[in-house]
Amino acid sequence: MMQEYKVPERLRGLGKSLIRDFFDRAPQGSINLGLGEPDLRTPDVINRAAIKVIADEQNGYTTHAGLVELREKIAGEYTGASSDACIVTAGSQEALYLALMSLVDAGDEVLIPNPGFVAYSTIIKIAGGNVKTYRLPKDKDFGFDVDEFEKSVTNSTKVVIVTSPSNPTGRAFDEKDLQAIADVLNNTKAFVISDEIYRELYFGDARPATIADFYPRTLVVSGLSKAMSMTGWRLGWLCGTNIENSVDGEAVRACLNAALVLHGYTVTCASTVSQKAALASWTTEGEAARAQSRRIFKRRRDVLIDLLGEAKLRAVIPEGAFYVMVDVARYGLSIEVAEKCLQQQVITVPGVAFGSESEGYLRVSFCADEDKLQTGVKRLQAGIEN
Amino acid sequence: MMQEYKVPERLRGLGKSLIRDFFDRAPQGSINLGLGEPDLRTPDVINRAAIKVIADEQNGYTTHAGLVELREKIAGEYTGASSDACIVTAGSQEALYLALMSLVDAGDEVLIPNPGFVAYSTIIKIAGGNVKTYRLPKDKDFGFDVDEFEKSVTNSTKVVIVTSPSNPTGRAFDEKDLQAIADVLNNTKAFVISDEIYRELYFGDARPATIADFYPRTLVVSGLSKAMSMTGWRLGWLCGTNIENSVDGEAVRACLNAALVLHGYTVTCASTVSQKAALASWTTEGEAARAQSRRIFKRRRDVLIDLLGEAKLRAVIPEGAFYVMVDVARYGLSIEVAEKCLQQQVITVPGVAFGSESEGYLRVSFCADEDKLQTGVKRLQAGIEN
Repeated sequence: MMQEYKVPERLRGLGKSLIRDFFDRAPQGSINLGLGEPDLRTPDVINRAAIKVIADEQNGYTTHAGLVELREKIAGEYTGASSDACIVTAGSQEALYLALMSLVDAGDEVLIPNPGFVAYSTIIKIAGGNVKTYRLPKDKDFGFDVDEFEKSVTNSTKVVIVTSPSNPTGRAFDEKDLQAIADVLNNTKAFVISDEIYRELYFGDARPATIADFYPRTLVVSGLSKAMSMTGWRLGWLCGTNIENSVDGEAVRACLNAALVLHGYTVTCASTVSQKAALASWTTEGEAARAQSRRIFKRRRDVLIDLLGEAKLRAVIPEGAFYVMVDVARYGLSIEVAEKCLQQQVITVPGVAFGSESEGYLRVSFCADEDKLQTGVKRLQAGIEN
Repeated sequence: MMQEYKVPERLRGLGKSLIRDFFDRAPQGSINLGLGEPDLRTPDVINRAAIKVIADEQNGYTTHAGLVELREKIAGEYTGASSDACIVTAGSQEALYLALMSLVDAGDEVLIPNPGFVAYSTIIKIAGGNVKTYRLPKDKDFGFDVDEFEKSVTNSTKVVIVTSPSNPTGRAFDEKDLQAIADVLNNTKAFVISDEIYRELYFGDARPATIADFYPRTLVVSGLSKAMSMTGWRLGWLCGTNIENSVDGEAVRACLNAALVLHGYTVTCASTVSQKAALASWTTEGEAARAQSRRIFKRRRDVLIDLLGEAKLRAVIPEGAFYVMVDVARYGLSIEVAEKCLQQQVITVPGVAFGSESEGYLRVSFCADEDKLQTGVKRLQAGIEN
């Protein structure tokens, strides 16, 4: 008797993402404007701290939840958070995975933004949940729309994902938007997962607001990958908020407890070297590095928007992150346009990868220096007009 | 309407392990002979390599599967392995999680050793599988017993976990044992997960054999945590074997593909610094560090066995890992004896934590220097005779 391998139900039908497929097929010499990874170097203050702990200390397991000093720094970022309801994870990706696996049971309804990060729907499927979406309308430049949100929420909504600033659009929700979300959700007591991985990369005067300040039952997913150019260090967190608030706080704590158990059985703990080095992020020099990174990305955003304007391409102006959505609807389906651009040696991501709402757009990243942006937009134009 | 948080089915009933509970309740000044973590320093060759890559290189994402140079080194360890059917993971814990989540569907039967590592049954539960055990009989000092194995395997056996050397017993399977396992399983075509995290820590003349050399449909779970004292670096792997073998090889490859997708959605990639530093493990100096570590643990094993003998305590002599099973059956239940020892300020793990077969034993680790072993055994004796 020969048993063939059968992929378990939870992983069935999952494969290479559309983004990865484009990367893999890029011709040699391509300029990559598809990346979600800062091209800036990890700040010196982090590197120095890491080198010191490797030279001076033994780097064994930390507790599953992570170093308490680090969890205290993280919890200090959020209203009503506490180091004992905070888990240091192997990047924000793990934090997202833990949050969804600890909240979503088979058949549960999870509401995610359209367009939104590609991993949301996949992990919800792995968790056995049902994906519903709320539209961030393209005709509002992917801004928040309370009517769209309200009509998407039902009594069955168990979890809502809020991403601000957004991947793929870079749009941020303002306080009025967040209050509107809270007002709608107060009738349901759904949990919110607030994906704040881009929150430190903003181009306005102040860091965008967080839903945690408006809605108590919020778990924050974040990390240092984007703001501190630490993608390869795998340092993120899942942090409960408003946990003193009795009923909601208990629920958030209980979820964090379940997530901590799963974390122990998946990765044990985040890299100890990365955890110790991460502490340097909460120093004057660490803050200066983040500010410098914001300045660079803001300048690039402005350069890219100008270049696109000169090329007669309409773009959505982002308030954070490092992506610009470029309107290519009149040239065809986003996947066809991205394909033509690929042939001109510039990698972008077709908007449809992030949901139906961003069909007709390309996500163009500015994780590339100004020279590359210049050449990249020329190739983009050539590809589109081809 | 107030929805309370309800733990999803997959995580229900999981909590703090018996081991962790003992650690948390230990009085101040306790000697910890409960640890599964080498107390030796990470070898200098690894630390130097890590410092160099942090100083000289940017450490962004690697591919999900990990650095190809590293995967080539890993694949070089196993018969018929290939770098493209190998995933670098955040420790062997993640490798085990990926393997089980990619093999086990709801209701599938998984056969694990009794006694065995506590995480096996928990992850199988998370995956929705059913745990069955094969006895490694205490009256054979937890050695392999082909009759016990054969009667535990059924047509429903989907996956079998083989651990050699074993946690908690340190016993290794010899070639005859592995051949017997293969002979039984050849009728079922079950997958084998070979947990080899302790395979480099052996006390005989040669590294213990692997089931991968006897049974084709084997996935190896391993890593550098134990043999290279790198627990906090989170560097492990899941590696397919015998993948050229047509039917079995295709099945192993397909499973690795599913595991790679899940890996991407849980941790993205293992720490890049850890991956680059890990390459130094495959150098002359790296091999020398492993040999030195084996010498130290072998001497400690002999010292501990002598000390236990002087204390009139019978111990199972391990062929690898860094644990000794101490027979305390005549003093009561293992949990009660461990509790009494805890009151005498020595931490051990009650055998029952690893399965019913090791009831009546304590797992005593020699991740402690000879002075601590000496004091520890005195306290153990005092606790037991109390």
